[in-house]
Amino acid sequence: MQTQPANLFERAFKKLVPYGLEAVAGRRAVPDIMGLDPDLPEVDLGRVREWVDNCLDAHAGQVEARNRAAMLGRMYLNLSQVGKVRFLGMLAEEYGIDDAGVEQAISSWQSALNGERARKAHQLRKALEPAHNRLLKQFTGVPSGVKFLVDMREELLGLKQEHSELESLEADLKELLATWFDVGLLQMEEISWNSSAALLEKLIAYEAVHEIQSWSDLKNRLDSDRRCFAFIHPNMPDEPLIFVEVALVSGLAGSVQKLLDEDAPTQDIDSADTAIFYSISNAQPGLAGISFGNFLIKEVVKKLSREFPHLKQFATLSPIPGFARWLENCPAAQLCELPGGEQWLSLPSPRVVSVIEANESMDVRQEALTKLAAAYLCQCKKGTRAQDPVAHFHLSNGAKVARLNWMGDVSQKGLKQSAGLMVNYLYELPKIEQRSEQYTSEGVISQSSAIKKLLK
Amino acid sequence: MQTQPANLFERAFKKLVPYGLEAVAGRRAVPDIMGLDPDLPEVDLGRVREWVDNCLDAHAGQVEARNRAAMLGRMYLNLSQVGKVRFLGMLAEEYGIDDAGVEQAISSWQSALNGERARKAHQLRKALEPAHNRLLKQFTGVPSGVKFLVDMREELLGLKQEHSELESLEADLKELLATWFDVGLLQMEEISWNSSAALLEKLIAYEAVHEIQSWSDLKNRLDSDRRCFAFIHPNMPDEPLIFVEVALVSGLAGSVQKLLDEDAPTQDIDSADTAIFYSISNAQPGLAGISFGNFLIKEVVKKLSREFPHLKQFATLSPIPGFARWLENCPAAQLCELPGGEQWLSLPSPRVVSVIEANESMDVRQEALTKLAAAYLCQCKKGTRAQDPVAHFHLSNGAKVARLNWMGDVSQKGLKQSAGLMVNYLYELPKIEQRSEQYTSEGVISQSSAIKKLLK
Amino acid sequence: MQTQPANLFERAFKKLVPYGLEAVAGRRAVPDIMGLDPDLPEVDLGRVREWVDNCLDAHAGQVEARNRAAMLGRMYLNLSQVGKVRFLGMLAEEYGIDDAGVEQAISSWQSALNGERARKAHQLRKALEPAHNRLLKQFTGVPSGVKFLVDMREELLGLKQEHSELESLEADLKELLATWFDVGLLQMEEISWNSSAALLEKLIAYEAVHEIQSWSDLKNRLDSDRRCFAFIHPNMPDEPLIFVEVALVSGLAGSVQKLLDEDAPTQDIDSADTAIFYSISNAQPGLAGISFGNFLIKEVVKKLSREFPHLKQFATLSPIPGFARWLENCPAAQLCELPGGEQWLSLPSPRVVSVIEANESMDVRQEALTKLAAAYLCQCKKGTRAQDPVAHFHLSNGAKVARLNWMGDVSQKGLKQSAGLMVNYLYELPKIEQRSEQYTSEGVISQSSAIKKLLK
Amino acid sequence: MQTQPANLFERAFKKLVPYGLEAVAGRRAVPDIMGLDPDLPEVDLGRVREWVDNCLDAHAGQVEARNRAAMLGRMYLNLSQVGKVRFLGMLAEEYGIDDAGVEQAISSWQSALNGERARKAHQLRKALEPAHNRLLKQFTGVPSGVKFLVDMREELLGLKQEHSELESLEADLKELLATWFDVGLLQMEEISWNSSAALLEKLIAYEAVHEIQSWSDLKNRLDSDRRCFAFIHPNMPDEPLIFVEVALVSGLAGSVQKLLDEDAPTQDIDSADTAIFYSISNAQPGLAGISFGNFLIKEVVKKLSREFPHLKQFATLSPIPGFARWLENCPAAQLCELPGGEQWLSLPSPRVVSVIEANESMDVRQEALTKLAAAYLCQCKKGTRAQDPVAHFHLSNGAKVARLNWMGDVSQKGLKQSAGLMVNYLYELPKIEQRSEQYTSEGVISQSSAIKKLLK
Repeated sequence: MQTQPANLFERAFKKLVPYGLEAVAGRRAVPDIMGLDPDLPEVDLGRVREWVDNCLDAHAGQVEARNRAAMLGRMYLNLSQVGKVRFLGMLAEEYGIDDAGVEQAISSWQSALNGERARKAHQLRKALEPAHNRLLKQFTGVPSGVKFLVDMREELLGLKQEHSELESLEADLKELLATWFDVGLLQMEEISWNSSAALLEKLIAYEAVHEIQSWSDLKNRLDSDRRCFAFIHPNMPDEPLIFVEVALVSGLAGSVQKLLDEDAPTQDIDSADTAIFYSISNAQPGLAGISFGNFLIKEVVKKLSREFPHLKQFATLSPIPGFARWLENCPAAQLCELPGGEQWLSLPSPRVVSVIEANESMDVRQEALTKLAAAYLCQCKKGTRAQDPVAHFHLSNGAKVARLNWMGDVSQKGLKQSAGLMVNYLYELPKIEQRSEQYTSEGVISQSSAIKKLLK
Repeated sequence: MQTQPANLFERAFKKLVPYGLEAVAGRRAVPDIMGLDPDLPEVDLGRVREWVDNCLDAHAGQVEARNRAAMLGRMYLNLSQVGKVRFLGMLAEEYGIDDAGVEQAISSWQSALNGERARKAHQLRKALEPAHNRLLKQFTGVPSGVKFLVDMREELLGLKQEHSELESLEADLKELLATWFDVGLLQMEEISWNSSAALLEKLIAYEAVHEIQSWSDLKNRLDSDRRCFAFIHPNMPDEPLIFVEVALVSGLAGSVQKLLDEDAPTQDIDSADTAIFYSISNAQPGLAGISFGNFLIKEVVKKLSREFPHLKQFATLSPIPGFARWLENCPAAQLCELPGGEQWLSLPSPRVVSVIEANESMDVRQEALTKLAAAYLCQCKKGTRAQDPVAHFHLSNGAKVARLNWMGDVSQKGLKQSAGLMVNYLYELPKIEQRSEQYTSEGVISQSSAIKKLLK
Repeated sequence: MQTQPANLFERAFKKLVPYGLEAVAGRRAVPDIMGLDPDLPEVDLGRVREWVDNCLDAHAGQVEARNRAAMLGRMYLNLSQVGKVRFLGMLAEEYGIDDAGVEQAISSWQSALNGERARKAHQLRKALEPAHNRLLKQFTGVPSGVKFLVDMREELLGLKQEHSELESLEADLKELLATWFDVGLLQMEEISWNSSAALLEKLIAYEAVHEIQSWSDLKNRLDSDRRCFAFIHPNMPDEPLIFVEVALVSGLAGSVQKLLDEDAPTQDIDSADTAIFYSISNAQPGLAGISFGNFLIKEVVKKLSREFPHLKQFATLSPIPGFARWLENCPAAQLCELPGGEQWLSLPSPRVVSVIEANESMDVRQEALTKLAAAYLCQCKKGTRAQDPVAHFHLSNGAKVARLNWMGDVSQKGLKQSAGLMVNYLYELPKIEQRSEQYTSEGVISQSSAIKKLLK
Repeated sequence: MQTQPANLFERAFKKLVPYGLEAVAGRRAVPDIMGLDPDLPEVDLGRVREWVDNCLDAHAGQVEARNRAAMLGRMYLNLSQVGKVRFLGMLAEEYGIDDAGVEQAISSWQSALNGERARKAHQLRKALEPAHNRLLKQFTGVPSGVKFLVDMREELLGLKQEHSELESLEADLKELLATWFDVGLLQMEEISWNSSAALLEKLIAYEAVHEIQSWSDLKNRLDSDRRCFAFIHPNMPDEPLIFVEVALVSGLAGSVQKLLDEDAPTQDIDSADTAIFYSISNAQPGLAGISFGNFLIKEVVKKLSREFPHLKQFATLSPIPGFARWLENCPAAQLCELPGGEQWLSLPSPRVVSVIEANESMDVRQEALTKLAAAYLCQCKKGTRAQDPVAHFHLSNGAKVARLNWMGDVSQKGLKQSAGLMVNYLYELPKIEQRSEQYTSEGVISQSSAIKKLLK
């Protein structure tokens, strides 16, 4: 059968039917009844506007209101790109804030007596809520409605580049999503080969760091010496929000290719002393800017240390995604005291060519690049913030820069982005809160003595 | 072992320990460290104020921030009534809205150019958020933190009667809870004798309509011809929010005592044609004013009609809680055309005494009271709204007043509140949405022909 | 509704209906159709005999065969005690082994050539299977059929005392049950306050050592510092076969009343160093003689030591059920070297009266009785087997007699059976297999030095 | 990591370690300690013989006994083919029945008085149990032990072809497995895309009728208009024993290629009136001869008719695996009245060539072959039994031969085995028991009128 693009509302509409709503004549009939042009020309936009007003009708019962929202959602899914921009633009501009109402609420608040002030402030807050927010909120009660909004925000993030009129709608939706995806509501779930195929296929689709090649690659990553954890939201039970892949090993792992080798023997987990977080992926682009990784790592550390009391360290094996680009662009002055070398591996970097000159041995080049990477990670900042995004993520979580690994990722992507280097960030339980605060407030970057030596 | 009052944070603190947060020296040590007087005299209030500031410190990591909130929660649970009022008063008054900030945001918004307006409105909305809201939100991430807030609102609802300074805090908390307890997040769960004792004991505690006398009474209500459904929130998995008890019977049931008789034979559910909703209880006083019953009944109707396709009607067997009081107070003129009677059963009503006079046969009295009840239900309104609260609930859900049952509830409570009468509200699937709208907008009360006859 | 005696077949018959078996006209109609006298007079026994033949009809499909067995089971449940004896007697005597068939199979086997011998032995084994075994086996496919057989054996165990003709049937049924209740099929399940009420009510019913007084007593035994584990059979999922109650404490517990005190504070399980098994109950009298306790204790020890790595010892707190009776009956010579005392507590023992004489202080009496108990446990044997049944159970599992506790159980039962004493048996992981073998083969009883001292 | 061949005992040994059994020094160490040659030369066989005696040692505790069996199992898994034959041969021959013991038990039985006879018969039965049975039974208590025995029987079924000395061992093992895999213990489980990958990969491996090509093919077979059910044994929870794939369609389906087409649109299940069983696969070759299919189909019919009350018929879409071979071999006389044809499709059949001669149109050929297939299915018997094995399976379950489908399976396998034809067997609920009995006892084959017409 054809894989259907998203069929978000299929379940929705089946659930609706028993409500006895004749208006919803069947899940496939609806768009036909409306009979809209997917590009939403003016006349059709008018009909949609009426429907939106319908959805916002205060007299409708709560159940009915959500049914109407569901039909609107279905309509949206049938629109073309052009139609979507028109529809979203309408929501942004015509269903925003009622300025007159706000002015009135401001006057009320300003002239309120002390005992009334809080209530008036509350009313002002209400007046400031755009009408489209009320509409969007109705989707939480529609089956798959939250996922619908997450996907809509993904689209808005793309569209707002070209259509600045959508910016405020995107911001409003982000704020709503941030409320619903409060960390307190998330459930950490262990994912294994015993998890459902429906969930596992999402891992294959969403893995962002080291692509999963096949079901057999996935199975290998869920073997007896591996663990995988995800945050799940109760409203999107088959959708991981973020997930982390962990390897249980002896000592710090330095090469991701070794970790992912399907032919390597399985580690005896009873003798493992280290948990390596080798991949952390956000699975929902529509939740960009709403962070959970912070919590996930800490929950996983707690869980693993309870399950495997003999684990002695928790560390990542991470890419340095901004390193190669930085090498390209940083001023020669910063690099000049380092030994040079000619074209290095496949790194297409004229800058490095000139810096790491010919005649130098591989060892010298390794030392040079490793030192450069240490400098990049620990000394390149924007304000108090590390320039490398992955470094920033782990440092703000309270990690320490622990070790650099030459040839840690020799995949094309690894060579191109990180010059083949990988870094271990170490999570030392008793110190993570303090480090997190020191980094966040003052920009202090904790370093192991090995890293410090590289920086001398 | 002693039953501990609520020990909400026990689990919380155990979870925290593995975070390696030395600050949290142990779940029992905390209050000792703080060493506060439960009445929170001024000096101790000062220390709590510092701690609240600590909780609101923007530099703390999210995890640390929630830990601090957890400790504050624990502190709260150790306070006396006096101390709680002082603490909540401080939150209400000192951690409210920053008026100067609001004024500034208003100016900014008022002078903003068109393209900026939405962003400025957003900032004004933020400025209008009281500081205590930011504090309260941190509890969603603390284990049992949401239940903590629900219980705190229950306390606030009581305290604000005497302490009007707490009203705004209560209103703010209600708004937050309404967001978190959005119907879209609720899961309908079937409750049976196979449910956990931890959940079942909540039913015993919370049943509000017909008290559950014992575990054996409860078991009877979960027998093969009974069903029970509840809404559960993912953040409070062992706590029903609202639950409904259903009996599968043949024909409309008219007597609750018969339904609850432990010695009655079990109905063969394959021959049942009617589902009777004989009890609907809200389980969380702290969620008063945030309604779910509407949705629950509809979900249950959907579920039952799928499981038992031979069910032909869905109805309630409901008390008429305001009837007896109304009889007391309504002007004689309204009752005078009815035959009178002397003291009727145990109903301590001089008014009824004078109206339903002696010498009348029981039949006459039955007719008289039944007619009065029909009049009360269908004709006594405040505006468009039925005066009886249970009637209002079902009518706004789209039900019809179907039948009155003489001697339907002969318990003391039933006689005292409803003069022993009970009423069936009928949920007719194809008409509930329309009826709901007609009642809500125009106050139309649907009536069966039997009821109409009583009203002639 | 009436609590129905066992309604084993209710579910059975509902499942059967969709098979389209018109013969089974409905679950309540069946006995009426048969219309049997519950005492099964000769004429009715004849009809049952026909039905049994029907059940054994080799031409019926497997599904049909089981349906017939189900109806037979239903018939049995409606019989009186007299009727049951007649029916079971018929099964035992008329549906036993076909002697002629056996003789023939013996000849066949005896004259078989070498290559044929195994097959002929197989046939002889078949011939030796009583016809009623084939009938009983059909019940495994009937819902609740296995529980039916377990309960039938319970009845047989009682009936065979008076009706020796039922002995062979009971033995055959025991053998079948032993096959089905193979330990490999049992699942260990943790029972908590989150378990279903359907399961928990069984604990209340079945607890054999220290009676559970109420749901609140039960809840106390499932508090945060308690654990309870049971073996469950997949065919009887709501029925524990055996269960053990465990308290997590600091140091060996000596008094069961302290352990069960509902007002005692909860132990902090993170500081507990000892797991006390204070009650082990077999829940199915119909499985008498088929032992699982052995495995259950070891599984529980494994599970607890994984969950609580800081536990340092695993021990029981056990009654000495045969002690008081032994005191009554053992010859004076054995007791004479001990100090005497007058009537001790409520122990109605003239023997002890004469042995533990007046004027002795309580301490002397304590010492005397404790020494006697040590002697009873460690020196009173039948062959290599300890005379006390509880001692025998734990010793054959590999435990050591560790400590005697004066006034360990001051309940009436405890005083009467065990003179108020309780004993701790200690399970020391590295030694249990060796101790088990030494006790089983040679009768060696491991003793702590404290016990040895008492025996000097 | 390397996919390990079966690692049945991995889990076993990990579970054993906490028993504190020093003898089991670690799951990898065992074979090294034994240090056996995989071919089991005489000297090593001697050591294994000792170990087997060890396993059968009556003094060992039950737990210890099973640990020893587990080690023996591990040893077995490390043997070569040669070693296995030697080991199994030893079990068959040296650990069989003790003839002298049997003779003695026979005498005892023959001379027993009436009251003693049953007990003596019991003892004779015991004496007839081969020693290897006692050994094999110990494996049920070892994790994965039952699966181990199932796999061992699979090997025995192959080996006994060449090694007739293994026949009795295979027969004994079959008998034990038949007891453990009693239908009453099996759980029917619905398999969907939400099932675990661990279970789903077994479907891919075991599908025997229409091979599953990929995970995407599998997902298609689990789409919204498909169902899949399996029997699971509680002791092998991740292993289906048998599974059936069902399509919900409108009208009888005639082509398996259409059913499996991944690009076909999904059927709206609310309008489906027919459930098509298009594939039934036994998943465990080691359970050959122990049948469950009978029960599975009936359970599935029950379940589907409850879930989809609008389903009007239940039918299979089945291959006719013996048809082409039968065409090859059946005497010309039987075919002579049929029109002929030349080489038909790719069917490599000289017989058909001569029968269905050239010049005939495709229609004629279709008619000819369809008539032949009807004759083959309904008239070709061995005794009362249909010759085609799939026909026999469904007929003995109570199905009717309903329709023949020309070009129903045009895969290579379908053309080769079934001449491209497929057949629908119809399960008509009210008649299946009666049909099953008529077929089983008298060989009556129910036919639709369409089939009857073909046979005229």
